[in-house]
Amino acid sequence: MKKKVVLAFSGGLDTSFCATYLANEKGYEVYTAIANTGGFSEKELIEVEKRAYQLGATHHVTLDVTKDYYEKSIKYMVFGNVLRNGTYPISVSSERIFQAIAIIEYAKKVGAHYVAHGSTGAGNDQVRFDLTFQVLAPNIEILTPTRDMCLTREQEINYLREHGITDMDFTKMEYSINKGLWGTSIGGKETLKSNKTLPEDAYPSQVNKHNKETLTIDFEEGEIAGVNGQTFENKIAAIREVEKIGSAFGIGRDMHIGDTIIGIKGRVGFEAAGALLIINAHKMLEKHTLTKWQQYWKDQIGTWYGMFLHEAQYLEPVMRDMEAFLSSTQLHVTGKVILELKPYSYTLVGVESVYDLMNSSFGEYGEMNRAWSADDVKGFTTILSNPMKIYYSLTKK
Amino acid sequence: MKKKVVLAFSGGLDTSFCATYLANEKGYEVYTAIANTGGFSEKELIEVEKRAYQLGATHHVTLDVTKDYYEKSIKYMVFGNVLRNGTYPISVSSERIFQAIAIIEYAKKVGAHYVAHGSTGAGNDQVRFDLTFQVLAPNIEILTPTRDMCLTREQEINYLREHGITDMDFTKMEYSINKGLWGTSIGGKETLKSNKTLPEDAYPSQVNKHNKETLTIDFEEGEIAGVNGQTFENKIAAIREVEKIGSAFGIGRDMHIGDTIIGIKGRVGFEAAGALLIINAHKMLEKHTLTKWQQYWKDQIGTWYGMFLHEAQYLEPVMRDMEAFLSSTQLHVTGKVILELKPYSYTLVGVESVYDLMNSSFGEYGEMNRAWSADDVKGFTTILSNPMKIYYSLTKK
Amino acid sequence: MKKKVVLAFSGGLDTSFCATYLANEKGYEVYTAIANTGGFSEKELIEVEKRAYQLGATHHVTLDVTKDYYEKSIKYMVFGNVLRNGTYPISVSSERIFQAIAIIEYAKKVGAHYVAHGSTGAGNDQVRFDLTFQVLAPNIEILTPTRDMCLTREQEINYLREHGITDMDFTKMEYSINKGLWGTSIGGKETLKSNKTLPEDAYPSQVNKHNKETLTIDFEEGEIAGVNGQTFENKIAAIREVEKIGSAFGIGRDMHIGDTIIGIKGRVGFEAAGALLIINAHKMLEKHTLTKWQQYWKDQIGTWYGMFLHEAQYLEPVMRDMEAFLSSTQLHVTGKVILELKPYSYTLVGVESVYDLMNSSFGEYGEMNRAWSADDVKGFTTILSNPMKIYYSLTKK
Amino acid sequence: MKKKVVLAFSGGLDTSFCATYLANEKGYEVYTAIANTGGFSEKELIEVEKRAYQLGATHHVTLDVTKDYYEKSIKYMVFGNVLRNGTYPISVSSERIFQAIAIIEYAKKVGAHYVAHGSTGAGNDQVRFDLTFQVLAPNIEILTPTRDMCLTREQEINYLREHGITDMDFTKMEYSINKGLWGTSIGGKETLKSNKTLPEDAYPSQVNKHNKETLTIDFEEGEIAGVNGQTFENKIAAIREVEKIGSAFGIGRDMHIGDTIIGIKGRVGFEAAGALLIINAHKMLEKHTLTKWQQYWKDQIGTWYGMFLHEAQYLEPVMRDMEAFLSSTQLHVTGKVILELKPYSYTLVGVESVYDLMNSSFGEYGEMNRAWSADDVKGFTTILSNPMKIYYSLTKK
Repeated sequence: MKKKVVLAFSGGLDTSFCATYLANEKGYEVYTAIANTGGFSEKELIEVEKRAYQLGATHHVTLDVTKDYYEKSIKYMVFGNVLRNGTYPISVSSERIFQAIAIIEYAKKVGAHYVAHGSTGAGNDQVRFDLTFQVLAPNIEILTPTRDMCLTREQEINYLREHGITDMDFTKMEYSINKGLWGTSIGGKETLKSNKTLPEDAYPSQVNKHNKETLTIDFEEGEIAGVNGQTFENKIAAIREVEKIGSAFGIGRDMHIGDTIIGIKGRVGFEAAGALLIINAHKMLEKHTLTKWQQYWKDQIGTWYGMFLHEAQYLEPVMRDMEAFLSSTQLHVTGKVILELKPYSYTLVGVESVYDLMNSSFGEYGEMNRAWSADDVKGFTTILSNPMKIYYSLTKK
Repeated sequence: MKKKVVLAFSGGLDTSFCATYLANEKGYEVYTAIANTGGFSEKELIEVEKRAYQLGATHHVTLDVTKDYYEKSIKYMVFGNVLRNGTYPISVSSERIFQAIAIIEYAKKVGAHYVAHGSTGAGNDQVRFDLTFQVLAPNIEILTPTRDMCLTREQEINYLREHGITDMDFTKMEYSINKGLWGTSIGGKETLKSNKTLPEDAYPSQVNKHNKETLTIDFEEGEIAGVNGQTFENKIAAIREVEKIGSAFGIGRDMHIGDTIIGIKGRVGFEAAGALLIINAHKMLEKHTLTKWQQYWKDQIGTWYGMFLHEAQYLEPVMRDMEAFLSSTQLHVTGKVILELKPYSYTLVGVESVYDLMNSSFGEYGEMNRAWSADDVKGFTTILSNPMKIYYSLTKK
Repeated sequence: MKKKVVLAFSGGLDTSFCATYLANEKGYEVYTAIANTGGFSEKELIEVEKRAYQLGATHHVTLDVTKDYYEKSIKYMVFGNVLRNGTYPISVSSERIFQAIAIIEYAKKVGAHYVAHGSTGAGNDQVRFDLTFQVLAPNIEILTPTRDMCLTREQEINYLREHGITDMDFTKMEYSINKGLWGTSIGGKETLKSNKTLPEDAYPSQVNKHNKETLTIDFEEGEIAGVNGQTFENKIAAIREVEKIGSAFGIGRDMHIGDTIIGIKGRVGFEAAGALLIINAHKMLEKHTLTKWQQYWKDQIGTWYGMFLHEAQYLEPVMRDMEAFLSSTQLHVTGKVILELKPYSYTLVGVESVYDLMNSSFGEYGEMNRAWSADDVKGFTTILSNPMKIYYSLTKK
Repeated sequence: MKKKVVLAFSGGLDTSFCATYLANEKGYEVYTAIANTGGFSEKELIEVEKRAYQLGATHHVTLDVTKDYYEKSIKYMVFGNVLRNGTYPISVSSERIFQAIAIIEYAKKVGAHYVAHGSTGAGNDQVRFDLTFQVLAPNIEILTPTRDMCLTREQEINYLREHGITDMDFTKMEYSINKGLWGTSIGGKETLKSNKTLPEDAYPSQVNKHNKETLTIDFEEGEIAGVNGQTFENKIAAIREVEKIGSAFGIGRDMHIGDTIIGIKGRVGFEAAGALLIINAHKMLEKHTLTKWQQYWKDQIGTWYGMFLHEAQYLEPVMRDMEAFLSSTQLHVTGKVILELKPYSYTLVGVESVYDLMNSSFGEYGEMNRAWSADDVKGFTTILSNPMKIYYSLTKK
């Protein structure tokens, strides 16, 4: 009986090669699986399926984990205002983890002997797949033909052509583009050097709005609940709505420079209007509804959470503890955020919230001196100065 | 003999009242002192001096602490990329501390019995003055007539008119504007509520550039050293140059919402093109020249440093320790940052640095596999997965 | 109709004075309330009640909040291994908060006009009472006669004698001792200076065991569940059992030197055998059952949690978020800890736990090389060295 | 011409095997080098040298880096009060780094083609050697015969016997003991399981003092400067003196359970009387001379510094930044600490310091109310309660 291999399949060149190679050269029964975290359309998924069978797969499955991805990742990235290096919403990398989990769970379900992926030896994704596979199924061996054989693009194309795959478009794109629910990454050319940025036309979305427009986003306990006054039960639809609105203004474009898991600096362009607008609106609402120390600790935990998510450490148990922390902080993060969009930028106009600590009944009477007096502040300052008064009385000696 | 009082004097209504009140009602010998951290022009300072004598001061002095303010505060705010709540460059509040220090040192020098300031009981500045005065001169009593008598604007104006001051312009401005070297704050109307932002014309600088323009900023060990190719020995002139260039694009405007020292939320508009462009260019250069963990710890220390600076805790000895940390990190932060300015926004195009960790000879050979192999990454991932493999082997029980 | 005041009453000199003073001089209807967090015996509480009526109270109530104190404070102090400054289990100070909460809730229930406490102006407790009262009942005025009148001990005693209280023992103790469920604090004499420690006989418990003895403590999800093999449903009884065992060895004595809320350094002796043994046993169990990063973050959060608890900030919402974090971490903190007690010290012998990450099936096969090879470690090290290799390649220039 | 290999040599079985193997089987010119960080006596070093030549080395060198080790590591471990997991003074692991640095610098100096060490594939030391070698000399290849061939003890012994080494004592010790300047680690038997501790006689030092004894340690700017009143210019001699005194009481013994670099839990016994007494005395002095926030940040940085030192990351540039921070904090850490030693434990009696923040002239007048009044504390508390008052006014809705 043939041995079963579950292959994480995207329909791209690397995984197409793997499918044919594993079926033909290794003689395995190839189960292709595509885990969709929201980046693929129905039409694309049908194409992928067709391709899989053509390449030699005997089984193919689409694993829709969009909801899971939202519930277990996007939600917390918003709670934590996660922007890696202050910039990047961890668009594609966070999806990989949930794709890897779906794939390995499927491999366990079908009793696979092997699990395969098409990542090369140069990037972060290999670590995300390998690590997640190993941790959740230490007994299923991992196969990575393209990585192990250090194949070039041309070698893969030739191999596929030799095996009768002649209708695939093998044209190399100028930029390598990765589209996901939480943003699209764009690599190549300028991103390989330090001193240039991507040209306008490298971005998948083009600017077609030129006048100011108001956008409102509603949050309920930290989660997006409405856009421009319309309630969204479906958070994914809400994200897509914000993405659509923002990308027409060219909002959410930037360049991420950061440390890869394997310790070198990497640079990648991205556009993520939805992620950026939602996170920054959410953060603004928190400035009004959370205390100083809640914000202080959220910053620290959100930063670490994002780092670990990026670095394939999603399964580390401390991540669950951090999620418990972040969830607890969202109790009062309910309200409306008003934004003004313009080409390439936007303004956070303000918020409306019953939990607004600035606009509370405590202060609404305006005369803050109803709550405290000038003498109270004097006393406060005197006590606050105690440690330093003592310290400086000693340094004078 | 009359008792001497040194009054922190700005020429505004509150301190004008104090000058006359302390001279006439209290019978003190009034020494007015204006500490300039870079926000006042020569002409303004001459006006202030004239006014002081007119109001009853017997001595007046201008203390120029711009250089001190740069060396002891701006420099470290840049090293630490200090943006309070991710937004606000601590423009005015950081200046108050250095003004307070200059005033109290002057008071000690002239042997003053009292030191006075004009802050009211509602804001942060009273804490900054009181605390700094107390710590550095615990034996000089602090006088704050306007705060203690809870005077209204009208009462102060009437008092001054009664004492012959008729040539002052007492018109209340629509917005209260505080101009400094590191930014200008704008309070009033919209900033008192949560859901509106400042209108275009509330900003002192108006947009008069509408086409894209390239800006380059050079740094040497973390400090600004050049602008658009021109070397600046004088850091203050360099800051002013960047400010001038950026403000013509309306860059650096935003709204800060944060916790005041006295524990309530406050909201204030600001424009700070110079500070924002310099800090964000500096941060970009650090992304290329510092390691991941240097950045991680700088973030934490910079955040705290900014918080304490804002909250009148500049004299806390931990601040000196943090400055030592921050200075140490700047060893390699040398290079050129390229920005593209457009109306209301800008792009960080890239950097050029001999210390660029991305563009090093290590990687310049491109083939990263000269430094490591696919097997190395596999081994890395296997070891990295150890703690989680063990953890998940136990949870399965 | 007389105005009602609820007085936080302990039966000591200060609160005895307050009871009589508020009834006689102020003419209020005095409701005395004693909030017991586990430090008072039944007999003591009956004495306190008798005394209250004798002093002029018209109502007296004992509020037993021991369980609440355990559930809302001790539990989290154990989860967080809270030892202030690495030493002090926040014995008495944590109890004050829960006493204050119970008192103010009672005051609200009976519709009191005032709430009173007997703290003086020198310590931390005044802040704990004032702050908790103000936050939870901003409209109930706080009365503090002893603080406001700056009374000496003698003045209070004379006043009470004049009002017929002649059977109280007014002898001043050599040390001021505060007994609680989570430890006993001892202040006076040596603690007022920096260079002496408390003599043996200043400690309430005396050493009466001189031979080694084994103690085992069982934990279930972080909470104490058994002592020496005996199951304890009642956590408070378990704590008392450990306290009894440990204090016979003189374990848990130390001196705390730290910053008071009002910014000066304070020094206090304590004995807290129960708290110390439980916390350190718990921490040992965590070393075996938590991952490195769970421990890292728990340390940080536990430290802050303890600081805020100590500094009267229990009601800060960030404390609830931290509790959520800490609770989440305890999922696997189940097992037995073995200790060996000897006079004045003890050894943490070891642990037994199904969640022991050291003794897992992963490692039980002994030959760690079943999970990884020497080449894996080489690969790991190569990748781990990448950032530094790059860094040092640049510094050489 | 023969290729040169520099071998990190200790005289133990593994490195003895390597010396002979590299000379005989590989035909290299073997340069043995022993880097002494203070753990070896003169006599031992002479033995090691003899042995090296006997085993086939053509050159042998003793690199004395004790001073370097103190200046670059111990000093900062004391400044940072570094106790890994709250317990372990990083005794042996910190020495490895400085040995590795000395070895690789020597290898560069003599123009070696290879550098070799005898670590096996199971522990932390292989990472420390490999990483340090790679970073400082990326072009010198690393050889690790014992690791690569997975040799057993018996195989190594047989090989050496076959090559005429018959006078070495190949008896396996019951425990593997590693002696260093900053402590001695003890592994084996009980340390391999979780529930037992080392027996009394497993510790190299035996208790021979049974009565209480006073010890005083003087510090100057954080560094040890005197012991029992005697000034020590030589810090290393001072450490040895404290070690000698403390180990006679059986002080400083404990068990470390922590995460190894390769991600599994490890357990090791140790005795480190010198390190423990010095660090804890130093920490006590800091409680008196540093502000709350200096201590707070020192804790965080010290913890990380210790973690990275343990985990072979000494060369990470952030470590230099942390050293700058730690050095800055020590300005006032000058004074005498008094300890009382007894068998197996000790008491921190107190401190004497001109920088004692508790005993300052500010407070020496006793009546703290000279610096502040009860009203000041009331005002302080009122302002401190502001954020929570506002927060709770909103939650009531």
